[in-house]
Amino acid sequence: MYRIDCLQFANWSETIFREMNEGGVHAVHVTIAYHETFRETVEQMARWNRWFEKHSDLIIPGRTAADVDLARETGRTAIIFGFQNPSPMEADIDLVEILHTLGARFMQLTYNNQSLLATGCYEEDDTGVTRMGREVIKEMNRVGLVVDMSHSADRSTIEAAEISDRPIAITHANPHAWHPALRNKRDEVIRAVTENGGMMGFSLYPHHLKDKTECTLESFCQMVADAAETYGVEHFGLGSDLCQDQPDSVVEWMRVGRWTKGIDYGEGNASAPGFPPQPTWFESNLHFGNIEDGLRAVGFDEAETAGLMGDNWYRFFAENFGPVGGAA
Amino acid sequence: MYRIDCLQFANWSETIFREMNEGGVHAVHVTIAYHETFRETVEQMARWNRWFEKHSDLIIPGRTAADVDLARETGRTAIIFGFQNPSPMEADIDLVEILHTLGARFMQLTYNNQSLLATGCYEEDDTGVTRMGREVIKEMNRVGLVVDMSHSADRSTIEAAEISDRPIAITHANPHAWHPALRNKRDEVIRAVTENGGMMGFSLYPHHLKDKTECTLESFCQMVADAAETYGVEHFGLGSDLCQDQPDSVVEWMRVGRWTKGIDYGEGNASAPGFPPQPTWFESNLHFGNIEDGLRAVGFDEAETAGLMGDNWYRFFAENFGPVGGAA
Repeated sequence: MYRIDCLQFANWSETIFREMNEGGVHAVHVTIAYHETFRETVEQMARWNRWFEKHSDLIIPGRTAADVDLARETGRTAIIFGFQNPSPMEADIDLVEILHTLGARFMQLTYNNQSLLATGCYEEDDTGVTRMGREVIKEMNRVGLVVDMSHSADRSTIEAAEISDRPIAITHANPHAWHPALRNKRDEVIRAVTENGGMMGFSLYPHHLKDKTECTLESFCQMVADAAETYGVEHFGLGSDLCQDQPDSVVEWMRVGRWTKGIDYGEGNASAPGFPPQPTWFESNLHFGNIEDGLRAVGFDEAETAGLMGDNWYRFFAENFGPVGGAA
Repeated sequence: MYRIDCLQFANWSETIFREMNEGGVHAVHVTIAYHETFRETVEQMARWNRWFEKHSDLIIPGRTAADVDLARETGRTAIIFGFQNPSPMEADIDLVEILHTLGARFMQLTYNNQSLLATGCYEEDDTGVTRMGREVIKEMNRVGLVVDMSHSADRSTIEAAEISDRPIAITHANPHAWHPALRNKRDEVIRAVTENGGMMGFSLYPHHLKDKTECTLESFCQMVADAAETYGVEHFGLGSDLCQDQPDSVVEWMRVGRWTKGIDYGEGNASAPGFPPQPTWFESNLHFGNIEDGLRAVGFDEAETAGLMGDNWYRFFAENFGPVGGAA
């Protein structure tokens, strides 16, 4: 059984890398860019290269499913790079392959706002995938950079799922029907992604949870069970959106970047602008066992539980992290 | 037998790629930067990515010795990226690994002038490898980016050969004793490089040849024979410095870059500022057979000829294109 988390954005430290290991997490998709330019993204990769060198006993670069196997066999964690926005490719389609060569495996087409490629979930009007968006999806398909629509608007997401020749992902979100947050996904969106072979990772970010910080493990796992029954268990995994140890200044950068001189609270508000506290049953990488137990408790069998905890993402990585038919 | 050219800087075209194939050239080290910044170097890589896609029947990226084998088995040519100057890493040691990940396998520490790392062969005073140079050599050793001292001054080259934990290269030059050009290498320089396991590629650039354009194949091959006898045949290969189909504006960029607003003629002069014509027996990738015949004619046996034509570079690539003990 693999244990994979398909989205974290922690304030990275040796402590957290140790917790990943101790928590038995074989791979984590980490966000390395929200609004960064290409050059700033390279800086982030360089920062990770230093960690890979310094903490080679704990983490390794994750570029293929084989790297996840290597991590599992050697008791380490494979770190997979992703962007929450296409800003690292700037306006240059050639940078898709360059960024993939540098290790990027997920790229969101939008982060809340309209991008050059599609519409974000906070825009009033969703005009779908743009002309450039179509070309970039084709290029992402070619090299094996996964289209992630977690922060995109509905029509854009549905179109991306249909336009893409390869399955796409919503790495971190939950069904809107369970908790009607703007970022959670409506039935027709989840259907479009899963019917085209795509994956969705369930989020543990309090704003995406029913009753937020007070959400119970039982409620979360029952939501998973309902989604699995509706769309097929093989299309789901975890994408916790864990933002461990981050100062509140970071959530401001995530929301505001350089697109406004003002302030935008995103899923927060003026009286609670920071990161919300996690539910007590999922505060760190040490807590995946709670979720595994909770999934069994709502009736998932061993294979289904394994699929949800990581095997489904592993299969998705193996099929989508490189050129079609190439090594992945 | 491998056929490898360890330096070309042509005005790349489908015609030249076809000539590489027809000439049976399994790998070519191509210069992709003279004075370019990091971002400009990425542009050059992107340009090559487009050629790799468009001409996938002729060329493939060359990042490991295994890629050279793949090229040979499939009748194509592996293209290996190199820089004639450390400008692509700017002043940032972290970019060494980033550039290696993007495919760079050779980097000159200097191009004619003083750099942040060492002294170039046109400077009056050669102060050797700098403090930063020592650190960068260590980092290049770690990731498997080969130190190339073709355009460096003598003391800097000798020091680099001694400081480096792994063999270094002079990818394109000839012995100074045969033709006393500034760019050709004196006995003590060749000795320092070869005694530390390094390689030198014989240049076919007319300024490096005795009698320049009029140099005979016999004279060239006898020079090779003399060098092989003095330093050991296993330390040599070809690095033709072929600049096929280039307009003269390019040699100006090579020599002047952005370091002067004036003009510098390098190995040329005001009355002959452009590229000199090649000897008739080496004008393109179709002519490697002439050299192979010439080497046999001066007495090299089959194994020695194979070594000089490519096997020695192949072995060097296999040992030096990745981390020590890692895949290369």
